[in-house]
Amino acid sequence: MENFLLAELKKAAQWIDAAIKSSTFPDAVRPDFLAQAMRAYPEVGGKRLRPAIMLWSAAAAGGDMQKVVPAAAALEVFHNWTLVHDDIIDGDETRRNQPTAHVVLAQAIDMAEHRRSKFGCDMAILAGDLMQAWAFDFIDQCDCSAGLKLKLARELRDCGYLKLVSGEAEDVVMSYRYAGDVSEAEMFAMQTGKTGALLHYAARAGWMLGKGYPEAWDEPEAVALGRFGDALALAFQLRDDYLGVFGKLEEFGKPIGSDLQEGKATLLLIHALKNLPASEEEKLSKLLYLESYTAEDLEQARQLFRQCSSVEYMLDAIKKYSAEAVDALTVLPDSDGKKLLQLLTEYLINREK
Amino acid sequence: MENFLLAELKKAAQWIDAAIKSSTFPDAVRPDFLAQAMRAYPEVGGKRLRPAIMLWSAAAAGGDMQKVVPAAAALEVFHNWTLVHDDIIDGDETRRNQPTAHVVLAQAIDMAEHRRSKFGCDMAILAGDLMQAWAFDFIDQCDCSAGLKLKLARELRDCGYLKLVSGEAEDVVMSYRYAGDVSEAEMFAMQTGKTGALLHYAARAGWMLGKGYPEAWDEPEAVALGRFGDALALAFQLRDDYLGVFGKLEEFGKPIGSDLQEGKATLLLIHALKNLPASEEEKLSKLLYLESYTAEDLEQARQLFRQCSSVEYMLDAIKKYSAEAVDALTVLPDSDGKKLLQLLTEYLINREK
Repeated sequence: MENFLLAELKKAAQWIDAAIKSSTFPDAVRPDFLAQAMRAYPEVGGKRLRPAIMLWSAAAAGGDMQKVVPAAAALEVFHNWTLVHDDIIDGDETRRNQPTAHVVLAQAIDMAEHRRSKFGCDMAILAGDLMQAWAFDFIDQCDCSAGLKLKLARELRDCGYLKLVSGEAEDVVMSYRYAGDVSEAEMFAMQTGKTGALLHYAARAGWMLGKGYPEAWDEPEAVALGRFGDALALAFQLRDDYLGVFGKLEEFGKPIGSDLQEGKATLLLIHALKNLPASEEEKLSKLLYLESYTAEDLEQARQLFRQCSSVEYMLDAIKKYSAEAVDALTVLPDSDGKKLLQLLTEYLINREK
Repeated sequence: MENFLLAELKKAAQWIDAAIKSSTFPDAVRPDFLAQAMRAYPEVGGKRLRPAIMLWSAAAAGGDMQKVVPAAAALEVFHNWTLVHDDIIDGDETRRNQPTAHVVLAQAIDMAEHRRSKFGCDMAILAGDLMQAWAFDFIDQCDCSAGLKLKLARELRDCGYLKLVSGEAEDVVMSYRYAGDVSEAEMFAMQTGKTGALLHYAARAGWMLGKGYPEAWDEPEAVALGRFGDALALAFQLRDDYLGVFGKLEEFGKPIGSDLQEGKATLLLIHALKNLPASEEEKLSKLLYLESYTAEDLEQARQLFRQCSSVEYMLDAIKKYSAEAVDALTVLPDSDGKKLLQLLTEYLINREK
């Protein structure tokens, strides 16, 4: 079954790649380096999760997946502008093993070295802005009624801006606080916006596109698919946070320990800081914000997470949300699309990378 | 006649104020300080030029101005997100006598002083992003057909992103070059995007809204109104650059000499650096990028601009573009809307502030 999933995921990724590469929208942008920056993230591509979910939800609704490609490309480009602006905000220098947008743009023109970093960030702000327009241009290219296009754009503004950007802002604010003072509810609310909103949109808008009329957004199956997206996002993010401490560097892209270095309020850390005895809590908090992490530092942190059962607590939460995701799908009639959404959930919560 | 213009400008501004204040779109944004930041620029308001042009073009097309208010509010909110991101890029600390968005946001939460500036910029990036969604939400609120809404959004992506943001990027790149190496053609191309694109959109989309169908975008009157917007923008910007050196501080909001301080490639400076004898060009270039400007510095610069007739050259260019703007209007049938667009042109090129 995993082969079926991977083959379908690959097919979806190829469709999205082709749609993005053949779009001429960025061609009118000047200077050329800014047009190239718009294309860089969407063309390199990641897992293409969001488009795949949208395509499979459309299939579950009895729609033609290929007709949904422009809307799925819109979603992927939309996701990528948020990454461009996030990378500026987080000061990240690599993504998908490539230099981030602001790092590339810092080298775009000849200038004094000390001014490059500011220039790169300024241009990356504008590249992200332009990508927002590109996403909505893709919606405009959909083979559907004007009313459905407007509905797609309206719900993307709700999910992709009001919910996602609010979640991103809450995440930034949270990063200035001690993780032990952040509640689980706050963290989950933030993640439901930051990660959940676009998965919610992907699944729910996919159903609507499969049906072909705007009213389908509120059909019980669409609402259930929205819950699927919400729950899958939390399970996915929890697995990410788990791998950030217990993963293997060779497989997981991100350096193990970087979440500890940032003092990131993951469920693991929130739970441990609240449940460890005071002396052990102090040990754990001394393992946050270090310049670098030795194998011993990481092993000590893992030991503390195990000691207060934070690992079990985390793994239980992953199971709970993935079960919620799969459960939400039961309302759908049986189909390949539904099967793929189920398989994807299993796959994502068991991944090592 | 000026009283008629000012009264109509005030009426337009009041309609736009009311529409922006009563919009609930930002209310769902979290944290609250981010929702407040979204509202700050559009609620304080500037001249409301772009909305006024849109309303009057609609009136010139025989339309009902009040029906156009949501589209005009969209344009105003759109203009304002570009200011929020520009202010980050330019590092400006005040606008319209208020602290800029990133300066206000730097104080939004409790944190170490040295981290505030970065936090303020990060949140202002997100505020600007959210305002983009708000602008298109206003278009969605228009009392018109779905097809017309899509056309309004499509042309706003063309003018407001592809042209305007490209112009902004070219302006930033230009700011890293010696003004004497910038050609007039490059500077005008940049300004046509950065300042012209939204005035073009305002005038041309206004006509389309007045007519009420998307095909009106390509009617000869709409095309002429687009040219009106292009030419008015250049005349407006040239007047701004003129006042930046020859204006009176009490009237003009911006500190006199700040363009010289930035070495900004205005028509005045481009012309003078190319036409002064070498020894005088050197004198003028030594007056660029100073820490501060004394009355003597400014007087010496003015003297050099007069010496090579750069001032006349500049004033002639203002006349040329304002004549082009007024000329473009001749194709329109006589109406109050047309009259107001003529009066506005005269008013803007004679303003002292």
